[in-house]
Amino acid sequence: MGRVDDQSEQPGLSTGAEVVVNRLLAEGVDVCFANPGTSEMHFVAALDAVPAMRPVLCLFEGVASGAADGYARIAGRPAATLLHLGPGMANALANLHNARRAFSPVVNVVGDHATYHQSLDAPLESDIEALGQWTHGSVHRPDSAADLDILVREAVQSATAPPGRVATVILPADYSWEATAQKPLLDNISEVEPEPGDIDIDVAAAGELLRTQAEHAVLLLGGGATAADGLRAAARIRAAAGARVLVETFPARLARGRDVPALERLGYLAEQATQQLSGATHLVLVGAKTPVSFFAYPGKPSVLVPDGATVHHLAVEDLSGLADELGGAAPTVPPSEPGAPPSGPLNPQNLAQVIAALLPENAIISDEANTSGVFLPAATASSPPHDVLTLTGGAIGQGLPVAVGAAVAAPHRPVIALQSDGSAAYTISALWTMAREQLDITVVILNNRAYAILQLELMRVGTRADGERSRSLLDLSRPDIDFASIAQGFGVPASRAGTAEELADQFRAALAEPGPHLIDAVLPTWSPG
Amino acid sequence: MGRVDDQSEQPGLSTGAEVVVNRLLAEGVDVCFANPGTSEMHFVAALDAVPAMRPVLCLFEGVASGAADGYARIAGRPAATLLHLGPGMANALANLHNARRAFSPVVNVVGDHATYHQSLDAPLESDIEALGQWTHGSVHRPDSAADLDILVREAVQSATAPPGRVATVILPADYSWEATAQKPLLDNISEVEPEPGDIDIDVAAAGELLRTQAEHAVLLLGGGATAADGLRAAARIRAAAGARVLVETFPARLARGRDVPALERLGYLAEQATQQLSGATHLVLVGAKTPVSFFAYPGKPSVLVPDGATVHHLAVEDLSGLADELGGAAPTVPPSEPGAPPSGPLNPQNLAQVIAALLPENAIISDEANTSGVFLPAATASSPPHDVLTLTGGAIGQGLPVAVGAAVAAPHRPVIALQSDGSAAYTISALWTMAREQLDITVVILNNRAYAILQLELMRVGTRADGERSRSLLDLSRPDIDFASIAQGFGVPASRAGTAEELADQFRAALAEPGPHLIDAVLPTWSPG
Repeated sequence: MGRVDDQSEQPGLSTGAEVVVNRLLAEGVDVCFANPGTSEMHFVAALDAVPAMRPVLCLFEGVASGAADGYARIAGRPAATLLHLGPGMANALANLHNARRAFSPVVNVVGDHATYHQSLDAPLESDIEALGQWTHGSVHRPDSAADLDILVREAVQSATAPPGRVATVILPADYSWEATAQKPLLDNISEVEPEPGDIDIDVAAAGELLRTQAEHAVLLLGGGATAADGLRAAARIRAAAGARVLVETFPARLARGRDVPALERLGYLAEQATQQLSGATHLVLVGAKTPVSFFAYPGKPSVLVPDGATVHHLAVEDLSGLADELGGAAPTVPPSEPGAPPSGPLNPQNLAQVIAALLPENAIISDEANTSGVFLPAATASSPPHDVLTLTGGAIGQGLPVAVGAAVAAPHRPVIALQSDGSAAYTISALWTMAREQLDITVVILNNRAYAILQLELMRVGTRADGERSRSLLDLSRPDIDFASIAQGFGVPASRAGTAEELADQFRAALAEPGPHLIDAVLPTWSPG
Repeated sequence: MGRVDDQSEQPGLSTGAEVVVNRLLAEGVDVCFANPGTSEMHFVAALDAVPAMRPVLCLFEGVASGAADGYARIAGRPAATLLHLGPGMANALANLHNARRAFSPVVNVVGDHATYHQSLDAPLESDIEALGQWTHGSVHRPDSAADLDILVREAVQSATAPPGRVATVILPADYSWEATAQKPLLDNISEVEPEPGDIDIDVAAAGELLRTQAEHAVLLLGGGATAADGLRAAARIRAAAGARVLVETFPARLARGRDVPALERLGYLAEQATQQLSGATHLVLVGAKTPVSFFAYPGKPSVLVPDGATVHHLAVEDLSGLADELGGAAPTVPPSEPGAPPSGPLNPQNLAQVIAALLPENAIISDEANTSGVFLPAATASSPPHDVLTLTGGAIGQGLPVAVGAAVAAPHRPVIALQSDGSAAYTISALWTMAREQLDITVVILNNRAYAILQLELMRVGTRADGERSRSLLDLSRPDIDFASIAQGFGVPASRAGTAEELADQFRAALAEPGPHLIDAVLPTWSPG
């Protein structure tokens, strides 16, 4: 077990680090995605004394934070991260941004210098609070070692209060190594208030609206409404009232497959979204935010709500009541199967067909396929039921870490990471954690040797790059990246597929074997159409 | 050339993005380490219109910021980075922290949403200013598109004002695509004030101090004093007065090799540093900060200045005057050569001997060798003259990016990156940029399959990890990482060395060929001694 040789050890008392680990466990947090440094060594030692906490080593902090996001989306409760001072927190931020946009509860434990060391501006000193606040979450810094027990409880409660957020505990090294009696927990610790709801329409009013103006109404589902129950209720509403129903562009967790209605997602391209919402005079948001375009484009609208339309907010838990109110019966979906795997040189369309045809029961898809993934939603509509986790905050490098977290949360579900090549490079060391933990993840790299999304966006923002210099920044060839070689370097068995048949064979084999596999799916080099 | 099809184009006017690129060039910034996204597409297009700016694509923002740091340390002037909104800036922060500690001038250009889009809380919206301020640098946000020319000039001046800092320009997409007349540059633009100096001792007083109390005085050199001239002056002072002379623990750029005095560096371990400074009653800082331990440890002092000692600050430019004042002659250094390359199974000591024996003339060493690199300073003292760039801010993942920047700054100097395995994983995609740009970099991975520094630190903070769970967080085996395979995946020719002879053969071959190479030097698995 972890031992403190320091004179501050007192019989019968735990070190601060042990208090933190024990309190996390008592509040239901039993996985820690860790990238520790010197200031976290007592926390590391405490893991031996408190074996119920599962540590998962990540080789980069952005893997730890993305894994905590993926874990929360599947487990429905937070994991901890263990990060090394400000620079460690900084490396975690991009995927904490995605977690924030997914409303995933995450509890960061960020080691800090001993309190008496903080004023010395030692090399690793920086403003950790500022980074915690950047996530729009709560930041918890103890005033004394005796505060740790209460403080960690408050942090977990803050993270898990609906709709979920990032909570950051700053753990000074001296508080971590001291063995100090803790202040008693209060019976009724002050609860963090959930964010004020802005629900402004109830079942009766929504029912009236849809009975009278369904052809001019759109239901937009997000957050908790994209689980299977929400999608089924929305499909009943659509069947009964004839209203349009859409799912937000990047849901945190979307139920998919043949047992749930395949509802259209609001398009990423503003042009497409504008078309989907055209003519609507009432937009009923259910767990979704008011839709805005991802970026601004010259001469195009940023707010996607049609001019003059009224925006309503319906509570997610009222969705099935609304379906009942409207008397909607569950639409009968004709049983269907995805087609047999296709053949021929690989392209985005037959790649999607292969994945759809072979997708196992109850899979989890971590989807950062980006441009090359456009055919996936249609192809997988009749695959077995599965969940899809998407890029909620637009900070790329999310897909592989989220797959790690999902696989830790659901060890008996196959996880498929559909990952574009450019985005894969940001947090590629996630592969090593997959190997270390022998996670059942099949990574498919959609390798088109380009930041294809940027070649598209370059045109959409109203400019052109005819020149070699600008093209060089959007092209990932020279040299081509061999992801199979990289994966093998990180200990993940890997192969390359150039045809649909090869992909099907390799995907089937990867799914049949335990542990992680990577398939580098070599697509035609992308160029704007 | 870059063209704006938007109606805002006016004849004779440049887009905001072109203004920014042109102003950077006018201020002497002609390299841009870039990881762009949609909001930076006009900047990308402008690179075609303004071909004097050299864009260098990086696959992760931490590579771009570390490269800008390495570039500044060698070129003595800033490079630009191009980053994508808050999450892109977040990924750059850890190496900006190192740049801050190195006093490297860096100019970040961070694309932001169009100004009218910023209030919509679109998915990528976040507080970019907060991240810029975290670097302790300046943040420049234009109030209008007409401000860009002035603003970029101010940012470059802020970055380059002594001693050097990180300046961040926030570039909204609409200002970037608009073609707007610029406010005229003022003749005397308000200069950024250099940080107030705290110089409190001049040549005469320092001379008097050293003549009378040399045996109780220590000169600690940092910043600009670690160039060859400073080291020679300090060696003359030591020879004349008999004072102890030390170099700070992690210098930004340290001249080394047989033409410069091999001055001892202040130890990383507080125990060692305390020993080096013991008995000093006067500590004369020359470009260095007051020494403090990297971390706090139970029962050990954090401030390394001996009790009761007086701390003085001497200006770097007074160092050679002080040597003259004391009448110090340059010590004659007997000509020496490093020994012939050794043989036998590889270990940290013979690895250092191989590097030292084969180090080419005028090399640059990017040193993130950490625990495995302890024998390097002694071994390379008689190697040909070279510069060493170290981990100034303790944020690991710095060595490979800094090597990229150094190689771009000095295309005719061989760059050697000595890189520990754990740290290499943070920013490993730097290898791809080395391949893309065909940079003459030889990476040697000191692969001991452990966070050895943490195994050491675990003991030093007064705790132990006897258990499997804590050990699992400090060990990088299961699976072992094959860096040669990873390097080949990123397009860098690579090999593995298990003996000193193999390392010597491979190192010689890598130096003889242009372009990047990686050698995965397999050391005995580290365990605390």
